[in-house]
Amino acid sequence: GVHLLSPAAERLRHILGEDDSTPTPTLFTEMDTLQHEGGELEWKESARWVKFEEKVEEGGERWSKPHVSTLTLHSLFELRTCLQTGSILLDLEGYSLPQIVDDIVDRQIADGLIPPDLKEKISFVLLRKHRHQTKKPIHRSLADIGKSSNAASMCGSFTDPAQSRSMNDISDTPSTDQLKNKFMKKIPRDAEASNVLIGEVDFLEKPFVSFVRLAQATTLGGLTEVPVPTRFLFILLGPHGKTKSYNEIGRAIATLMVDDLFSDVAYKARDRDDLIAGVDEFLDEVIVLPPGEWDPKIRIEPPKKVPSAEMRKSVLNLNELGQMNGSAGGAAGGEDEELPAPHEFAGGLWLDIKRKIPWYCSDIYDGFHIQSISAVLFIYLGCITNAITFGGLLGDATDNYQGVMESFLGTALAGTVFCVFGGQPLIILSSTGPILIFEKLLYEFSKSNDIDYMELRLWIGLHSCLQCFLLVVSDASYIIKYMTRFTEEGFSSLISFIFISDAIKKMVAWKYYPINRGFKPDYITAYKCECIAPDQGESSDRSKETGKQSYLDWSQLSKKECVKYGGALVGNSCKYVPDLALMSFILFFGTYSMTVSLKKFKFSRYFPTKLRKLISDFSIFMSIMSFVGLDMLMGLDTPKLIVPTEFKPTRSDRGWLVMPFGKNPWWWYLASSVPALLVTILIFMDQQISAVIVNRKENKLKKGCGYHLDLFWVGVLMAVCSFMGLPWYVAATVISIAHIDSLKMESESSAPGEQPQFLGVREQRLTGILVFVLTGLSVFLAPVLQFIPMPVLYGVFLYMGVASLSGIQFWERIKLYLMPAKHQPDFSFLRHVPLRRVHLFTLVQIVCLAVLWILKSTFLAIIFPVMILGLLVVRKLLDLIFSQHDLAWLDDILPDKDKKKKEDDKTKKKERKAVEPESDEEVREIWTNMKLNSSLPSTHTQTRILFSPKFINDKCIYVAPFKAELQSCKQNNNESKYNLKNNILQEYNKN
Amino acid sequence: GVHLLSPAAERLRHILGEDDSTPTPTLFTEMDTLQHEGGELEWKESARWVKFEEKVEEGGERWSKPHVSTLTLHSLFELRTCLQTGSILLDLEGYSLPQIVDDIVDRQIADGLIPPDLKEKISFVLLRKHRHQTKKPIHRSLADIGKSSNAASMCGSFTDPAQSRSMNDISDTPSTDQLKNKFMKKIPRDAEASNVLIGEVDFLEKPFVSFVRLAQATTLGGLTEVPVPTRFLFILLGPHGKTKSYNEIGRAIATLMVDDLFSDVAYKARDRDDLIAGVDEFLDEVIVLPPGEWDPKIRIEPPKKVPSAEMRKSVLNLNELGQMNGSAGGAAGGEDEELPAPHEFAGGLWLDIKRKIPWYCSDIYDGFHIQSISAVLFIYLGCITNAITFGGLLGDATDNYQGVMESFLGTALAGTVFCVFGGQPLIILSSTGPILIFEKLLYEFSKSNDIDYMELRLWIGLHSCLQCFLLVVSDASYIIKYMTRFTEEGFSSLISFIFISDAIKKMVAWKYYPINRGFKPDYITAYKCECIAPDQGESSDRSKETGKQSYLDWSQLSKKECVKYGGALVGNSCKYVPDLALMSFILFFGTYSMTVSLKKFKFSRYFPTKLRKLISDFSIFMSIMSFVGLDMLMGLDTPKLIVPTEFKPTRSDRGWLVMPFGKNPWWWYLASSVPALLVTILIFMDQQISAVIVNRKENKLKKGCGYHLDLFWVGVLMAVCSFMGLPWYVAATVISIAHIDSLKMESESSAPGEQPQFLGVREQRLTGILVFVLTGLSVFLAPVLQFIPMPVLYGVFLYMGVASLSGIQFWERIKLYLMPAKHQPDFSFLRHVPLRRVHLFTLVQIVCLAVLWILKSTFLAIIFPVMILGLLVVRKLLDLIFSQHDLAWLDDILPDKDKKKKEDDKTKKKERKAVEPESDEEVREIWTNMKLNSSLPSTHTQTRILFSPKFINDKCIYVAPFKAELQSCKQNNNESKYNLKNNILQEYNKN
Repeated sequence: GVHLLSPAAERLRHILGEDDSTPTPTLFTEMDTLQHEGGELEWKESARWVKFEEKVEEGGERWSKPHVSTLTLHSLFELRTCLQTGSILLDLEGYSLPQIVDDIVDRQIADGLIPPDLKEKISFVLLRKHRHQTKKPIHRSLADIGKSSNAASMCGSFTDPAQSRSMNDISDTPSTDQLKNKFMKKIPRDAEASNVLIGEVDFLEKPFVSFVRLAQATTLGGLTEVPVPTRFLFILLGPHGKTKSYNEIGRAIATLMVDDLFSDVAYKARDRDDLIAGVDEFLDEVIVLPPGEWDPKIRIEPPKKVPSAEMRKSVLNLNELGQMNGSAGGAAGGEDEELPAPHEFAGGLWLDIKRKIPWYCSDIYDGFHIQSISAVLFIYLGCITNAITFGGLLGDATDNYQGVMESFLGTALAGTVFCVFGGQPLIILSSTGPILIFEKLLYEFSKSNDIDYMELRLWIGLHSCLQCFLLVVSDASYIIKYMTRFTEEGFSSLISFIFISDAIKKMVAWKYYPINRGFKPDYITAYKCECIAPDQGESSDRSKETGKQSYLDWSQLSKKECVKYGGALVGNSCKYVPDLALMSFILFFGTYSMTVSLKKFKFSRYFPTKLRKLISDFSIFMSIMSFVGLDMLMGLDTPKLIVPTEFKPTRSDRGWLVMPFGKNPWWWYLASSVPALLVTILIFMDQQISAVIVNRKENKLKKGCGYHLDLFWVGVLMAVCSFMGLPWYVAATVISIAHIDSLKMESESSAPGEQPQFLGVREQRLTGILVFVLTGLSVFLAPVLQFIPMPVLYGVFLYMGVASLSGIQFWERIKLYLMPAKHQPDFSFLRHVPLRRVHLFTLVQIVCLAVLWILKSTFLAIIFPVMILGLLVVRKLLDLIFSQHDLAWLDDILPDKDKKKKEDDKTKKKERKAVEPESDEEVREIWTNMKLNSSLPSTHTQTRILFSPKFINDKCIYVAPFKAELQSCKQNNNESKYNLKNNILQEYNKN
Repeated sequence: GVHLLSPAAERLRHILGEDDSTPTPTLFTEMDTLQHEGGELEWKESARWVKFEEKVEEGGERWSKPHVSTLTLHSLFELRTCLQTGSILLDLEGYSLPQIVDDIVDRQIADGLIPPDLKEKISFVLLRKHRHQTKKPIHRSLADIGKSSNAASMCGSFTDPAQSRSMNDISDTPSTDQLKNKFMKKIPRDAEASNVLIGEVDFLEKPFVSFVRLAQATTLGGLTEVPVPTRFLFILLGPHGKTKSYNEIGRAIATLMVDDLFSDVAYKARDRDDLIAGVDEFLDEVIVLPPGEWDPKIRIEPPKKVPSAEMRKSVLNLNELGQMNGSAGGAAGGEDEELPAPHEFAGGLWLDIKRKIPWYCSDIYDGFHIQSISAVLFIYLGCITNAITFGGLLGDATDNYQGVMESFLGTALAGTVFCVFGGQPLIILSSTGPILIFEKLLYEFSKSNDIDYMELRLWIGLHSCLQCFLLVVSDASYIIKYMTRFTEEGFSSLISFIFISDAIKKMVAWKYYPINRGFKPDYITAYKCECIAPDQGESSDRSKETGKQSYLDWSQLSKKECVKYGGALVGNSCKYVPDLALMSFILFFGTYSMTVSLKKFKFSRYFPTKLRKLISDFSIFMSIMSFVGLDMLMGLDTPKLIVPTEFKPTRSDRGWLVMPFGKNPWWWYLASSVPALLVTILIFMDQQISAVIVNRKENKLKKGCGYHLDLFWVGVLMAVCSFMGLPWYVAATVISIAHIDSLKMESESSAPGEQPQFLGVREQRLTGILVFVLTGLSVFLAPVLQFIPMPVLYGVFLYMGVASLSGIQFWERIKLYLMPAKHQPDFSFLRHVPLRRVHLFTLVQIVCLAVLWILKSTFLAIIFPVMILGLLVVRKLLDLIFSQHDLAWLDDILPDKDKKKKEDDKTKKKERKAVEPESDEEVREIWTNMKLNSSLPSTHTQTRILFSPKFINDKCIYVAPFKAELQSCKQNNNESKYNLKNNILQEYNKN
């Protein structure tokens, strides 16, 4: 039905609705107050607003931090009176300040507000020069000394304007100070200025108020701190004794002028009443803090987000929109971008390609940014450390059929190909644990059954490749639809924990460098380790081999040589290695903690923002450099990163190509499809879950995903690697997350006080390609890389693991166990789900992970990916224990078509369940953006059910009902607000 | 002159001024809303207020964090209407809820607000049972299932009250749930409740509003969550469809009820108009946030401090007070506590004793607190480490005339005596650097001139003691009057830096445990260290001494033995000690960082507050234990704390008593007065500056100071220690600060959301005494203490040094150099002094410290205390460079009598310069406390110049003019506020 709208709102709706096509410019507001400084009258800047208030600290000669303008109700009422009684000049043709001042004063005289004889005095005051906070105070004071000496008589009060100074003290053109002002950067390009002038004079008996809107924004010389053309002028001159009160009125109008809604009103107002309606609407929306619970002197830091102007405007248009709901509501976001029938042949792959092609150029040039350098260095070091670690382990497992060299080559090859052609180039391919275990079992099987390992492996690879293709053309990747936060976070936490535990295990080098715990410095004379020649009898067979044993000076042999020639190491220091264990620990832990500290440094107060950001971006590089330096300084023989320096297979009896036929019986070519199935599942799950994690909505990826394309290339690479006898590669969760983290973008905050927003990730292919090209070239970088101690790299690994845990809701929920309820952060799921349900949910997840962890440590590790499917089953079972409402908050439910339908219905029934926890803000934002970019008239935005596209992938162009508080709030407000108003004010008025 | 007061304010002044002697009880407000739960009507608690709002999170079944109630202006206006149109029952005689409800409804009927036939329905609704958030939801849901089955017909809407349930659903007596509610702890004892009931019903056509004040606060059964008697009831029932609006009105009245000023009004209101005047006054004071700059959904954390009710009330009484300024102003705080003429013989000492005696008993029993245990452990470890370090150094310097044993005994003796009898028992005595240097020079001088060192030292000590007495009786300690923040912070920073650098220097154990940097694990066979018998010729003279040299098995000798018997250590590992250096570093740095982290743990979210506080209090102890444990686990021969185990002088040729005569020529007895003078200055400055630092106002000490008494006992101890041949002792700055830090008290926050306040320090003698008694007993604790590695203790030292820097303004100012202006914290001195002046001031301080640091490193260290006097001179010179205004903000100016006078004048001239930077809040607080505790009528508090006692010492009962913003603000407000109101509201009304 038609609700009551207040006359003010009605009026605003009219003027704001009139002509929505031209957005109004942003307003910069400067407030100047009249000062008697050294006997001269001048206007001194006292505060400014871009969005938030910055005040000139009087003694400190500095700008305060941007803060929310806290006003008094009283000043707003006074301002309202000012606008009612003062003169309002709308669309005044103004080209210079003197002319404008003239017009203003004339109007006042015409309106009978001031006697004509005051004209000269007022004009004189209004044309005094303006001193802005930018000017060096030392300049001023010198200049002032000169001036005040010949104008000493002016001191204290205003006398005769004609005496010594010209009428117009203010320059016509912007001064160099204005032009050089760096603050200009903070003001949007199209901005216009509004100037608020507040002063006390002794010749007035009642306030002189004028509100001016110029027909054209005009640069009025030195009026404004920055060379921004002035559009609005608010002048308040009054008799002495009320400075504080005048200042508050000035702050009130300045705050109003930068208010999105009021500034719109100010631009479009047709008369005085429109302006007053704007003030009234503002008053209706203000937030009130009780005086006993807040100290007005506290400067409130700007919030992270403020309600958008669009949201606020829409309140005015409620009724029209209410009627449109029924018709236009459901269709807006749903059909046009719907998925194609997913069972079309290779439909998914085709869609992926179609989606990625348009971005291809930007995938390259988006990579040119300084941040990319740090990302490349970081990920490169991660990749080669991984290549060396896995290469070493693979070499052990396969008798060097695949060693460090193969690992490097394979990483470089697979990574480069994937980054060039893959669907999601932010994913980093790497060897993973399950594959390693598979290879190990396969090699042992081949050896014990006398089957040629390389040929068998080739066939498994080929089958697996084929199976991947089958999965691609059958659009099997749509399975990720069923992966909710539960599965996703469970998997990534597990991988992170494995990463962390591996890093720590590798670092704990006591095994390799045992410490002599009982060492007493005083008894150093008792510690020795000597190489003793073996008894001739025992080692006679060996001596034949070497031949030279008897001629050896045994005491000169090194430990290895001694062992090699069969000597015995005798002595109590043989099994100990001094210092290395502790040094490794220091390097490991130092790298980790320094990286963490430098990352945090971004949020410290020191140094300019840009430098801090640079330090934070390069934190890993800087930590590595520092601890490499420390290691070189100490000169200890810590284990170093050794990369192969020659381009040849690790094992001399194998070449770079594996022949598919000839070594094994023919039926193995078919039978290998069975183990291949295991590999396929392994690869599929690992790849797709990692991709889901990379694509998760928190990362705000804009270029879409390519699950099918990814899998296609992983399949191709399987075959290629198998032919070349290189390891198999699949998406590495932790390194991919690290990749994304190192490419995150934040908005440069524009208005002072506005918080930088996370904008998304620098999505491009360049960093990935560079990383893998560098990996390939590492063979030539060996002389440089050999200075990097392994413990430092393990420290980097630890950092990666820990960092990938941050921001995971599961991890936040684990922490809740240790917090008393009253100290828990204000997570939205805690507002809506009872704590014990949250704890239960977390507990289930923990148990799942514990089980997986234990299984992983047994031979079952090979079916690890299958166990991930188990997670999906557990999650399904949770539907029995938890209500859908709870799950909606704890676990993002990704609704399929049916659910979507149901939700629509539900929403219509006004059962307002939130389907997307924590994303309310986001949805609103996306929605706003959508609206801004769309050509729909603004009325369309008020559909009762709001649809927002979600950029996870195809599955994710789904809709989420907008939480409807807004609606009910609006209704209630508008209904009751104006019924009561008359009564209230009449009474309040009596006082 | 008489200013305009609004009618509302006039009214309030009248009712609040009437009877100020009985303070009104604190109000606890609970808001319950009517719910249709499972077909039953019930009142469900939705929010509560002690001071801040706590909301029931609907889905979460939990309390939100306490937050500032953000209201809408609209809801406040609606509330005002409600109070105007509803029925107001003041001083209703009520003994049970049914009776009260009866009275309320009858009144409504009598007033013609509702038709009589609604009586039963309304009573029925109002008597439904109340469900509070404390109840376990699982209980409820079971109970509900049972109930809702036989009341299914009630579902959805209200039908007939008589059908199945009794009229009165609510119990008469508090339930066990209520009585067991732990929340009771958070509510002050004398609190009364106000209940806000908000509901929608379908039988009303316009709102039913009732505000009730009971004549006596009465416990109304299960109405309130806690068994607190109810005094106020606010009932709002209305037709359907405006839930949101009703809730907002409920929140508004609830917020008003906990407002200090309005609750006073509510208690004292004589009629409806008084209440409305209260609302109006509240409206005049509210703080308004612009809608475009703040999101109303953000819950605002309670501020650290809110304006006190007294301050707010005083605004109403301005005029009366304004007139009183002239007469009562100056005298209030000044004369009665004034110093006695300081030149009276030993007047200061006498005053000190008079001041300390009354506290003596509390000095003992205030020590019984768990915090004392951690303080004792912490300071004890600091003391014995210090005793051992200085003992060792003194032993080296004096050929063991004073060694570790003397150091322990002296520390124990001097410390105990001082803590038992001293003026400021929080001060910890210790050996200090300058004394060490003096002893060293003195011993060298004696040795080269063949003078008996101990006797000479005794005489110097006696002279010095005498000189101290002279300083005491001449009240020389008043010199500390001239120590400003500049000197104080300069000195303590310097001492802290020395402490830190000493700790690091001592830890860097490379010297003692060199690391073999080129060590290659593989060549371990090449590393040995052998003891080679000396050539017979070379060592023939020595061999005579030992006699047994030729029979030795040289290869079996330890390093020390080898050197002792003249053997040569040959081998490339002789000069290296593996692992110890790195292990020491890990212990040192680990102890330090763990202490820092655990200290910070107090501010984390984990674990209950009490546990966190315990962990924070015992952080040092826990860190020490952890790293002692680690050290034991590693079993390395790190240097341990070795305390003497036998009670005898270090040097066997000296006894425990030094004879004054006989060894040196008689004239030395007189001449020693010259070096004694140096010692005296040294002791005087060291002692008094440390005492100033301990007594500084930030520590909020309440038991006063005793500079003269302190010096007296230091003098006595000089003599005693000299007689016994023990080292001399003086106040140790850093350890004393650590002592104070470990005894800091914070208020347990009472109302949820209120910040704990720093209350002061646990001033007592017990911890000090225990520390020194334990030090004395350390001889017996040796078996335990020997497990503590020295690097761990150096870590503690590092922590002490760093911790004593925190909170020093000088240090904060140094940090400003590295911060861009916009990131700098909002220090009040930055608001008032230009940044470059601040930087200049800091630079001067840095240069002074650098010079002192350099001098300290030369032989000039002995005149170190004299150089502190140099700081005073530099500070005086600063008066030439800096304006008094700047210095007032940067450097606490402690005005002497003249200055005080001047300032009074100044303030009268309304030149409102703040003399005490940063302490505005504090002054205000002290002032409020003073007033609350005093018997003065409240009107006295509004003196134009406010005096606040300052507890530094005698000098410090000085006055600081209150920053006068308040005054000017009030005037302006009152003047202009009500002139404009009529105009404004009339217009606003038109809409």
